[in-house]
Amino acid sequence: MTAVHDQPIDVPAGLKGVVVTDTSLGDVRGREGFYHYREYSAVDLAATRSLEDVWHLLLEGHLPDPVERKAFAARVAAARHLPPSVVDALPAIAVAGDAPLDGLRTALSLLGSALGVRPVYDLTQQQRADDALRLAAAVPTVLAALHRLRDGLAPIAPRDDLGHAAAYLAMLTGEEPQPQHARAVEQYLVLTVDHGFNASTFTARVIASTGADVAACVVGALGALSGPLHGGAPSRALDTLDAIGTPDRIDHWIRDRVLAGDRIMGFGHAVYRTDDPRSVMLRRVVEQLAEQDATAARLVRFARQVEQRVVELLAELKPGRELHTNVEFYAGVLMSLSGLTRELFTPTFAVARVIGWTANVLEQARDPKIIRPSARYVGPPPPVPVPEA
Amino acid sequence: MTAVHDQPIDVPAGLKGVVVTDTSLGDVRGREGFYHYREYSAVDLAATRSLEDVWHLLLEGHLPDPVERKAFAARVAAARHLPPSVVDALPAIAVAGDAPLDGLRTALSLLGSALGVRPVYDLTQQQRADDALRLAAAVPTVLAALHRLRDGLAPIAPRDDLGHAAAYLAMLTGEEPQPQHARAVEQYLVLTVDHGFNASTFTARVIASTGADVAACVVGALGALSGPLHGGAPSRALDTLDAIGTPDRIDHWIRDRVLAGDRIMGFGHAVYRTDDPRSVMLRRVVEQLAEQDATAARLVRFARQVEQRVVELLAELKPGRELHTNVEFYAGVLMSLSGLTRELFTPTFAVARVIGWTANVLEQARDPKIIRPSARYVGPPPPVPVPEA
Repeated sequence: MTAVHDQPIDVPAGLKGVVVTDTSLGDVRGREGFYHYREYSAVDLAATRSLEDVWHLLLEGHLPDPVERKAFAARVAAARHLPPSVVDALPAIAVAGDAPLDGLRTALSLLGSALGVRPVYDLTQQQRADDALRLAAAVPTVLAALHRLRDGLAPIAPRDDLGHAAAYLAMLTGEEPQPQHARAVEQYLVLTVDHGFNASTFTARVIASTGADVAACVVGALGALSGPLHGGAPSRALDTLDAIGTPDRIDHWIRDRVLAGDRIMGFGHAVYRTDDPRSVMLRRVVEQLAEQDATAARLVRFARQVEQRVVELLAELKPGRELHTNVEFYAGVLMSLSGLTRELFTPTFAVARVIGWTANVLEQARDPKIIRPSARYVGPPPPVPVPEA
Repeated sequence: MTAVHDQPIDVPAGLKGVVVTDTSLGDVRGREGFYHYREYSAVDLAATRSLEDVWHLLLEGHLPDPVERKAFAARVAAARHLPPSVVDALPAIAVAGDAPLDGLRTALSLLGSALGVRPVYDLTQQQRADDALRLAAAVPTVLAALHRLRDGLAPIAPRDDLGHAAAYLAMLTGEEPQPQHARAVEQYLVLTVDHGFNASTFTARVIASTGADVAACVVGALGALSGPLHGGAPSRALDTLDAIGTPDRIDHWIRDRVLAGDRIMGFGHAVYRTDDPRSVMLRRVVEQLAEQDATAARLVRFARQVEQRVVELLAELKPGRELHTNVEFYAGVLMSLSGLTRELFTPTFAVARVIGWTANVLEQARDPKIIRPSARYVGPPPPVPVPEA
């Protein structure tokens, strides 16, 4: 125990249910199947707004007016360009390891140094927001460059005339994406910007509570995101579809997995006890993609069949558990139909979530109180005399 | 709120006093002025044991026998060598920014990729310990190389025939350090390996709770350590001595600062309400250095005078606050007398503390439960219809 004046406070394992802070960024209502960014339904925002609009909402507290929209989009576009010292270091980072989140972590740490981001407590809120925007906006550029370098291709500079999602896709392929693909990916990004007080968001806030700079916070959050228990691997859900293969194999495949005690990837969520609103919206988006493309239509039809039958089977095999498709299920379908390969699925999630992390850092920085809990010593009682070496 | 079944649990701000976990790594008893690593007094360990012995104690749970000692020291020495891909990247990292902790953060992130460290939940406890040792042991090599590169000097390869502290000093200067300097720095490192559940240690454990790899945890912890509220800047205490200058100026200087509402750097601690046991031990160490060196003796005598008079003055000006010298006060004197320049003081602290972080990561990895608290939404009630863009 490090607390002096207070008695130790016992709480549930993993701090479950423990309220660390107030927030006005948003919330998740698991029973209702509803989540929101500030006062707006996230699904409604994804239906009608650009990623940049939602980014402005989280960072500045309100949706932009037309003048703000133009200025903010220009700031984001400018911040997609990396300093030359970071561009020069990317080949070495791509060579060092092939886990895309790890390379992103190293590159953003370096970018923080190159940009000279400063401890949040030394800055005004506007300066903090500027650091936050410059780091978050660079994520697609870094990811696309590392991806191409690993494939032996030269990185492509960001385009200022495209929105963030389209610019990301263009940096991956070198070609301007189809508008429906850019919009589908943009809607996915809007839906995944933020989602309650998950472990990576909490990590970002703990680091921010020491007054550290935004890069330190984002780099720590990326580390938490890379943990297998954090979840967020949409490629696994697509792997499930592949493994099942055809509609006639659904029952057999699912029963085998459930009997073996395996989790069915793409189904079930820690918080939602009804339809995951992200999944419902993503299904709508992929159905729009399917309207224009026969191959897409086949995959989406199969995904729908799997969803319907697996939900029925899980209700039978695991009664009372309320297992529905989660965000991963249609996210994998969406990204695949939009031209993203599976190793890019989780990094693409980071393109969106870094916006949420930085908004949380800005909110945390307004409260100059360090987050510093306690532990209980349960080892042998000290002091035991140190034996001679 | 993201908890579904439970009511939100309100706790003090900053999670103060909230017990996150059990630990058998050690504890801090603020009222008694006592802290320990496992069952041994940390001060007793610093008096009689090497850094490698204490490292083994934290990682493996017991002090090494002679055979274990030799094998462990050899593993540490081998792990001080960096992979060529990391050595090659260090010049670019040194150029990108001059904050030593930021460069260390980038280099350790890259090192994690180069070593191929893996998510802790995919590994045995022995494999985790191996990843932990390889990352922590590389810290002096990285710091010394970045320091020399910033000064336009070539990095120096680690020596396998020296202990960790001596090897660090040798990589900074290219010369084998005086034994008394190497031992003094080693004792400082032993004293600062771990110290309760501070914000950087907690950060490492939150990231570990997602199952992420050891590099992700250490990189996040470094971010937290870089925050101004985390503390740990021994150079500030030496700056205080410089600013006072001569014994006759102590009263005037201190009264001015206290009246201006400034904190006196080097005095006072969040947990200790009596002498900080680290300060008491570090004073003993610098007094030994003073016995052999007239310049050292002058600085140590002045530091003693400042300590005595400032403690008296603070008792008079801030009655009841129990303000004593903290770990920073004599740490700055010790490192300065051992040939370290001020910009190296906080990075040198990281040489030690990374051992404590990794020991905490290994302990956390035994408990497969994610740390995921909650927040309370306090913004305007949703959903408000999204206005047209």
